[in-house]
Amino acid sequence: VVGLIQVYTGEGKGKTTAALGLALRALGHGMKVGIICFHKDPNSYSYGEYKSLSKLGAHIFCFAKRHPHFFKDVSKEMVRKECLEGVRFIKRLYEEKEYDILILDEILISLRDGFLKEEEVGELLDKKPKELEVVLTGRGAPLWIIKRAHLVSEIKEIKHPYKMGIERRKGIEY
Amino acid sequence: VVGLIQVYTGEGKGKTTAALGLALRALGHGMKVGIICFHKDPNSYSYGEYKSLSKLGAHIFCFAKRHPHFFKDVSKEMVRKECLEGVRFIKRLYEEKEYDILILDEILISLRDGFLKEEEVGELLDKKPKELEVVLTGRGAPLWIIKRAHLVSEIKEIKHPYKMGIERRKGIEY
Repeated sequence: VVGLIQVYTGEGKGKTTAALGLALRALGHGMKVGIICFHKDPNSYSYGEYKSLSKLGAHIFCFAKRHPHFFKDVSKEMVRKECLEGVRFIKRLYEEKEYDILILDEILISLRDGFLKEEEVGELLDKKPKELEVVLTGRGAPLWIIKRAHLVSEIKEIKHPYKMGIERRKGIEY
Repeated sequence: VVGLIQVYTGEGKGKTTAALGLALRALGHGMKVGIICFHKDPNSYSYGEYKSLSKLGAHIFCFAKRHPHFFKDVSKEMVRKECLEGVRFIKRLYEEKEYDILILDEILISLRDGFLKEEEVGELLDKKPKELEVVLTGRGAPLWIIKRAHLVSEIKEIKHPYKMGIERRKGIEY
């Protein structure tokens, strides 16, 4: 079986949840799933779904947990360094061939915000082992990523409760 | 906490997976999740993710498992009858108040294909208990549903591997 490159992008709600739903499906079939997340701290954001996926046997690795947009004391140089560590880690996982699916959650944000360069993410697509399924998420997938991917879903926001003044709720939005 | 009405619609891949990812998150927070699916047989389609969610404690109930589009021996009257059973079942769950979230998977297909009438699905939105989160999925959400919902994400297909002649793969697409 040949593994594809999937992309979940767009402004709407459901990019990471769609990718994690994919993890859910794969785990149900006994596949090995690795999730590499960028710019998220699983101890706060996304806590619920990561906990559930861990229980089911997924392995979760997080890099650059604090994004300078939310944490003013975090330097861009530090985030870039941590993102590069993430990239090196993914390449090591490629070599170890332990996983059937790798979800690179929010890596498109690392790219959009300049913490990773086009050639660095491009290399992850070039060097993907043939059998491995790789899923990239995050807003603003550039055209060159869309061209390289096999499946691209754009999630559009038609209506969002935050805009009606409804606040984020534990267990639902995070 | 007030529960909202969420809708995942559009032609792209990831509607059900986004909704099930939401279930994953809620289960991780110890919430009670019920999934009511229409036009899907969990013993074949979506087997992986339903198995994973069951393990985590979600309850899954399926109605009108065989859609006439795929099974020519299934009559439309039979499907309508089974969909109405599903609606009655959902109303019973409303009364029992056991769940924090109900996912009505592909109910928008029941509506689109005329197996359920506007007033029947509308009643499910009208009678939703205040605290309950209800998530509807399926292509072609009509405008009146979008108006009634608090959160609507449309998943657009930008690129799809089937169109490149790549076939559905177990554990990834189903």
